[in-house]
Amino acid sequence: MYRSHNNGELNASHINKEVTLAGWVQKSRDKGFMIWVDLRDRYGLTQLIFDEQRTDKTVFEKAKSLGREFVIQVKGTVIERESKNANMSTGDVEILVSELNILNTALTPPFTIEDETDGGEDIRMKYRYLDIRRNPVKNSLLFRHKVAMEVRKYLSDLDFCEVETPYLIKSTPEGARDFVVPSRMNQGQFYALPQSPQTFKQLLMVGGMDKYFQIVKCFRDEDLRADRQPEFTQIDCEMAFVEQEDILNVFEGLTRHLLKELKGIEVDKFPRITYDYAMKTYGNDKPDIRFDMKFGELNSVAQHKDFGVFNSAELVVGIAAPNCASYTRKEIDALIDWVKRPQVGASGMVYVKCEEDGTFKSSVDKFYDQDDLKKWAEVTNAKAGDMIFVLSGPADKTRSQLSALRMELATRLGLRNPEVFAPLWVVDFPLLEFDEESGRYHAMHHPFTSPKPEDMKLIETEPGKVRANAYDMVLNGNEIGGGSIRIHDKDLQSRMFSLLGFTPEQAEEQFGFLMNAFQFGAPPHGGLAFGLDRLVAILGGQETIRDFIAFPKNNSGRDVMIDAPSAIDETQLKELYIKLDL
Amino acid sequence: MYRSHNNGELNASHINKEVTLAGWVQKSRDKGFMIWVDLRDRYGLTQLIFDEQRTDKTVFEKAKSLGREFVIQVKGTVIERESKNANMSTGDVEILVSELNILNTALTPPFTIEDETDGGEDIRMKYRYLDIRRNPVKNSLLFRHKVAMEVRKYLSDLDFCEVETPYLIKSTPEGARDFVVPSRMNQGQFYALPQSPQTFKQLLMVGGMDKYFQIVKCFRDEDLRADRQPEFTQIDCEMAFVEQEDILNVFEGLTRHLLKELKGIEVDKFPRITYDYAMKTYGNDKPDIRFDMKFGELNSVAQHKDFGVFNSAELVVGIAAPNCASYTRKEIDALIDWVKRPQVGASGMVYVKCEEDGTFKSSVDKFYDQDDLKKWAEVTNAKAGDMIFVLSGPADKTRSQLSALRMELATRLGLRNPEVFAPLWVVDFPLLEFDEESGRYHAMHHPFTSPKPEDMKLIETEPGKVRANAYDMVLNGNEIGGGSIRIHDKDLQSRMFSLLGFTPEQAEEQFGFLMNAFQFGAPPHGGLAFGLDRLVAILGGQETIRDFIAFPKNNSGRDVMIDAPSAIDETQLKELYIKLDL
Repeated sequence: MYRSHNNGELNASHINKEVTLAGWVQKSRDKGFMIWVDLRDRYGLTQLIFDEQRTDKTVFEKAKSLGREFVIQVKGTVIERESKNANMSTGDVEILVSELNILNTALTPPFTIEDETDGGEDIRMKYRYLDIRRNPVKNSLLFRHKVAMEVRKYLSDLDFCEVETPYLIKSTPEGARDFVVPSRMNQGQFYALPQSPQTFKQLLMVGGMDKYFQIVKCFRDEDLRADRQPEFTQIDCEMAFVEQEDILNVFEGLTRHLLKELKGIEVDKFPRITYDYAMKTYGNDKPDIRFDMKFGELNSVAQHKDFGVFNSAELVVGIAAPNCASYTRKEIDALIDWVKRPQVGASGMVYVKCEEDGTFKSSVDKFYDQDDLKKWAEVTNAKAGDMIFVLSGPADKTRSQLSALRMELATRLGLRNPEVFAPLWVVDFPLLEFDEESGRYHAMHHPFTSPKPEDMKLIETEPGKVRANAYDMVLNGNEIGGGSIRIHDKDLQSRMFSLLGFTPEQAEEQFGFLMNAFQFGAPPHGGLAFGLDRLVAILGGQETIRDFIAFPKNNSGRDVMIDAPSAIDETQLKELYIKLDL
Repeated sequence: MYRSHNNGELNASHINKEVTLAGWVQKSRDKGFMIWVDLRDRYGLTQLIFDEQRTDKTVFEKAKSLGREFVIQVKGTVIERESKNANMSTGDVEILVSELNILNTALTPPFTIEDETDGGEDIRMKYRYLDIRRNPVKNSLLFRHKVAMEVRKYLSDLDFCEVETPYLIKSTPEGARDFVVPSRMNQGQFYALPQSPQTFKQLLMVGGMDKYFQIVKCFRDEDLRADRQPEFTQIDCEMAFVEQEDILNVFEGLTRHLLKELKGIEVDKFPRITYDYAMKTYGNDKPDIRFDMKFGELNSVAQHKDFGVFNSAELVVGIAAPNCASYTRKEIDALIDWVKRPQVGASGMVYVKCEEDGTFKSSVDKFYDQDDLKKWAEVTNAKAGDMIFVLSGPADKTRSQLSALRMELATRLGLRNPEVFAPLWVVDFPLLEFDEESGRYHAMHHPFTSPKPEDMKLIETEPGKVRANAYDMVLNGNEIGGGSIRIHDKDLQSRMFSLLGFTPEQAEEQFGFLMNAFQFGAPPHGGLAFGLDRLVAILGGQETIRDFIAFPKNNSGRDVMIDAPSAIDETQLKELYIKLDL
């Protein structure tokens, strides 16, 4: 046995005990007559002491050779520490070492193994195994495990069955780009890696599995934006004989359970808002509602005056930034510059100071009197001391610009506390969205999403207005999960494929197995999927997912630690009936 | 809400309650004035009754149209059943239906949805979603989920952290053939799908994760023997600061836990035998010890007589088949034919009847007297009433033939009861095995396995004799898990790669990241992996893994349900910088 205890568990109750410990040398301080070593493992740090007076001479000499990150095993006696350290779980004791065994030496690590490291992103990724020794990364991985375990326990207790669906499946042109896998045994043919187990989980419902879940890797070969990974993990769920309400309740319950178990936070019933309301009120289908700043539409009160910019705009819309009336001209100008950046794209911004005395001072005083501005304040719910910011222009674009401003203001005002959690449901998503580039409708969620029956009458005439039984769970401005009630009728599914521009032959070739399955008694069903990486990061109070993934890839899809992808042998290619085409 | 109860839960306590049920029509019996329907879901069957006297006429007429596997929803009253069915959990009641809602119709399924189906393997795979409706398959999937949950709970409670390792990794020529994935963003390069997370779990140990596990899909592009899948699931585990003993204890504990929780069976401490002992005693490194029939080596008592066949053989070895002395000449001949089949390959077989009166009768009475045969009986531990079967020839081949006979006899004698569980550890595997074809040594386990320190002196001179710190867990004649203490020293790892025929450049190119990691303070570590598919099947009392995998592939690696793999678009190939080379 390499150790009797780990490095996080010894305390005053162990004093005078003989112990064996093992771990890494976090640091070593050599005062000549005395050497202190902080010994580290996953569980914590324990202080070792080598004393010229009390320690065997050979052991003492060996201790002098210890460098950072050496792997050692020691035997010794737990003694009381003179200067106790209340910040360490083992801070009341230290180990007077009698035996020292160097299990492995270590080169000097290329960055410091400390909570705050001097290593940049690139070097940390190359030596990820050293990065994982650092508490922030190690704790993120331990936290991820806890989240996954709680998810599994909660769903299992509700009778959900985790079923493993295949990774080697069939490529479908719909949606994002597939990663493909050439088949050696099936010459000239390819598997695809799943973008999600969508069709399999639906087939499990046809198969009577009733309640399915799976924590599963999914794959998308897309150009990687920051904080996206080519392989990512979903909590994938599906239920049969359910309506939207049943699904929202189950997964709201799961999320409340996670918040309670992992963060000790009890949240109220989640608000539910429609997609339309979200877009009009927050300019965004994943609103951050940790703070208010709802949009106020000002067309009726700001148009038909002499201000041409507003008069000609499709939408005039404002928000009240709390306690910002004191902003200086310079601060306001900086914000105006911010919204004019190409990433936001506004052409200008109007502001109204709501003074403490109930009067208003605006950048458009020329066109609007106090009564006018009072109405603006009413519509945007502005209070004395607030500042109203107003944008105008085409409705969709302007909402999106104001949404960006709303988030920026919240950040500047410190309203985005990562330890505050404000989940909600956004429901009634549109079934379809028009894609200008291809000139046709695309499924907003995916082609298996069912339209609301009451909107079916619009499906041929105004397809863009048809709402779907689709919903997203939103947490702190992030979509953490989304799903829908599915189509379970073959004819409706065929009609949907045709609406999405599939020929009957294409639909048959790609999804024939699913439509075929629907003919043999498909139950009503629906589900959702959570993005585990994002969920864990948000619950962990972080903005970026990378520290919650043990071995992430960089923005070119490379694993710089193992140096993958890489070239493969000519013989390997030949066996797969492919050749390079560079 | 689609249902108030499921179809497995109603009993006498619910009588007179109004309930809503949903599910599939298992069968419908129409007696004209009365229609009975068995309604099925994942949870069971409930009998519905439509009565011309008591049921609304329209409902009654609609009930007449119900076909097998229609999906329906009914409302009705729970009433006491006249002829109770003790074999059904709901057998005390039936539902007098007042409302009937046909949720979906169904074509007649291509095979019967019964425990014993009329469908062959191929059609069941094509319509796997219908096959999953059958109890044997459904229950196998539910059982698999339970096993996986118990594994996770047990290991989590011991502080193991489940870490997800990447699926898009680097191809290595060592071992089985990799599935590869062309990279679009890294022109001309390929990822590989992992055959196991071996190097990643070792890097997690270097990273201080201390105790890791993962239930994870692995991939091997090998010609598929029966009951092998190109993608399979491992319970993959690794621990730092451990010796072999620690690992055996932890995973013996896990297996005992599974047997207890899932089968209600308490097993004694697992026997541990060496590889050498296993090969000599059972002719096999994964012996089935539910029954005895240990090998008895007869060279010393059977050679140097006049029987030339034995005299010239490297090994003469026998087993005592219990209570088989009564075998007729015909039965014996059939067995002799069986061992002479090409799959076994023996050239002949000698037998000795151990008569009840203590005498012996053998096929070689010409050469051996009663005293000789008595010695054979002693060596093979044969009792009166047993039959000794003896094979001879080259040692390895003969042992393997006798092992096959031993299993065959056990099957014929009914000694392989799938509800009896006899686990054991086989330890001290050879480090290397000589491969005739390539004329060089291969790692028996994998190149990261550590040799036993006391055998290191043989490593250059007699590498085949070096034993490894490697172990297998064997259950009922199946290797269900295997692992080793790993090398954690860079120099030893380099030496191992060179022994395995790697040039230093090849070793560096393929495993440089691992050897590099070993320089930064690698702790002693080791682990093992269980094959989950096989483990679940054996615990489930089955010989074949296929029913424990939701969507298995056939022997050509095809998913016949979704028809994968398949051709992909020319544009897709172009984007990946490859073309077909047929």
